[in-house]
Amino acid sequence: MEKAQGFQVILVEDAGKRKAYAKITSEVLRYSTDFFHRKGFVQLMPVILSPITDPLGPDPGSSVIKTGEIEYLGQRLSLTQSMILHKQLAVKEGVEKLFIISPNVRLEHPKRGKSGKHLFEFSQLDFEIAHAKKEDVFALMDEFVRGVVEHTRVACREEFAALGRELLEFDGAFPIYTTHELKEKFGEDWETVASLAHKSPFWAVCHKREFYDKEDPEEEGHYLNYDLVYPEGFGEALSGAEREHEYSRIVGRIGKDMLDAGRYEAYLELAKEGLVPSAGGGFGIERLVRYLSGATHVGDVQMFRRVPGEAVVV
Amino acid sequence: MEKAQGFQVILVEDAGKRKAYAKITSEVLRYSTDFFHRKGFVQLMPVILSPITDPLGPDPGSSVIKTGEIEYLGQRLSLTQSMILHKQLAVKEGVEKLFIISPNVRLEHPKRGKSGKHLFEFSQLDFEIAHAKKEDVFALMDEFVRGVVEHTRVACREEFAALGRELLEFDGAFPIYTTHELKEKFGEDWETVASLAHKSPFWAVCHKREFYDKEDPEEEGHYLNYDLVYPEGFGEALSGAEREHEYSRIVGRIGKDMLDAGRYEAYLELAKEGLVPSAGGGFGIERLVRYLSGATHVGDVQMFRRVPGEAVVV
Repeated sequence: MEKAQGFQVILVEDAGKRKAYAKITSEVLRYSTDFFHRKGFVQLMPVILSPITDPLGPDPGSSVIKTGEIEYLGQRLSLTQSMILHKQLAVKEGVEKLFIISPNVRLEHPKRGKSGKHLFEFSQLDFEIAHAKKEDVFALMDEFVRGVVEHTRVACREEFAALGRELLEFDGAFPIYTTHELKEKFGEDWETVASLAHKSPFWAVCHKREFYDKEDPEEEGHYLNYDLVYPEGFGEALSGAEREHEYSRIVGRIGKDMLDAGRYEAYLELAKEGLVPSAGGGFGIERLVRYLSGATHVGDVQMFRRVPGEAVVV
Repeated sequence: MEKAQGFQVILVEDAGKRKAYAKITSEVLRYSTDFFHRKGFVQLMPVILSPITDPLGPDPGSSVIKTGEIEYLGQRLSLTQSMILHKQLAVKEGVEKLFIISPNVRLEHPKRGKSGKHLFEFSQLDFEIAHAKKEDVFALMDEFVRGVVEHTRVACREEFAALGRELLEFDGAFPIYTTHELKEKFGEDWETVASLAHKSPFWAVCHKREFYDKEDPEEEGHYLNYDLVYPEGFGEALSGAEREHEYSRIVGRIGKDMLDAGRYEAYLELAKEGLVPSAGGGFGIERLVRYLSGATHVGDVQMFRRVPGEAVVV
């Protein structure tokens, strides 16, 4: 009985809202696919299992409790945490502008279930551009965010009305801050506070992060990376960077992060042959839908809820 | 050294062909997404991990050696083998026409690596329509296949020329045969032989298959399901069916197939509340790209090769 009610809470209650979220998700996927094709990007297939995947941050206190792994015919394969390394390899193969609608599995600590913005399974639209700089990504995403807002405002008029959601209008380019500035103004945990203080999306640049984010060659300890942050408290939209592409720098950064270089053997062999400089990023589809629709929790917009710490029904 | 050469064979040799396959894949994804949106389908997010997934056939000699599984916070979760059960649940939630670009993991026996058409990881475009009959799916796919051929013929002219591929033209509706007819004419293993004997795609109807394919209520042992088969030896394109939606019939079929009903507990609870009659199907993106581009092996069209029995490099 309790279980049957559990199914109801997750799958049937608020069927109207669930249909509205499904429609908004659908229109976001439609617009996103069309936008990146129109801009000349090649759409790649996702990778689900690979010997290599994104290590997700040098932080030993990272909230991902383990990488999902299976064994198949004697090989240990990891579930994709992000396609960053595969994006670099595809650029090396000559696909100079690419995107993937990429399912990511990140087995988060159950405490993350309360953040409102974490899932253990979601999809990001992950893109990469050969020879690009961070300013190219800023311009692209500025146009994309305005475009998806305009598209869904028209295509999902009824759904937004049913959800009682009115997006704040925003004009002008999205402001750009360093994380140093944001920490000074909003404290160490600046993301939600700064997001609440804004009506427009904004960029936060220069974090210490994963080994593949390029360190500023002119300023050690500074990084050519960026997050796009939604306003109104919805927090991180996208994270991305210009990439480390020189073998010696990548090896040095993997060492500094105390990662097991053996796990990246094939990637490092290929990097030794020469990667191509690139910049890119990835934004979560469900977080974008949450922002557009004003949902309390990012899990609310999923047809099949995947929130850390909650039992998975189907 | 041997390993370094291994990387080269898989990632670098035929870089021109690899780029051509990537471009054709991209245009197939573009056309497919646009087509199903234009037809009024709602695009859902894929599911990667779930307590339930497609059992993939009642055959104890099935070529899938195991289901990929992980443990997360005390739950056993399976990697999606197909989204069939989730499609039925989404239709029950009121999403009456839906599609998903759905990554499927099927850990095939290594012998399947030689078939030319099997991968252990691929994506299918999986769709479902409430209250539809098989004739609705035939009409939809007829239009889709002609459309994607026309679209790629124009968008990928250079790539087809580089690959030396000329698709055979086909006119008229795709012929429909029963599997009984096909077996009589082409033998027990009719698929490849019949495919080679055709210039146009054709339908094969009425197989004994998974429990969710509807048994003909007027003719026991006959099934309201269908495969679309490519010509020129490329084999199966799509498989689909009208669905069993009545709880008692589903329970009976699961029993007949000697499956562990406990694995489908949540699905069965929801089926007890009442599923909605529907029909649908799924076609593999990589197999479609293989057919369009005339590739020898479906793995050739993957940027990151996933062929059963071959070591995975990256």
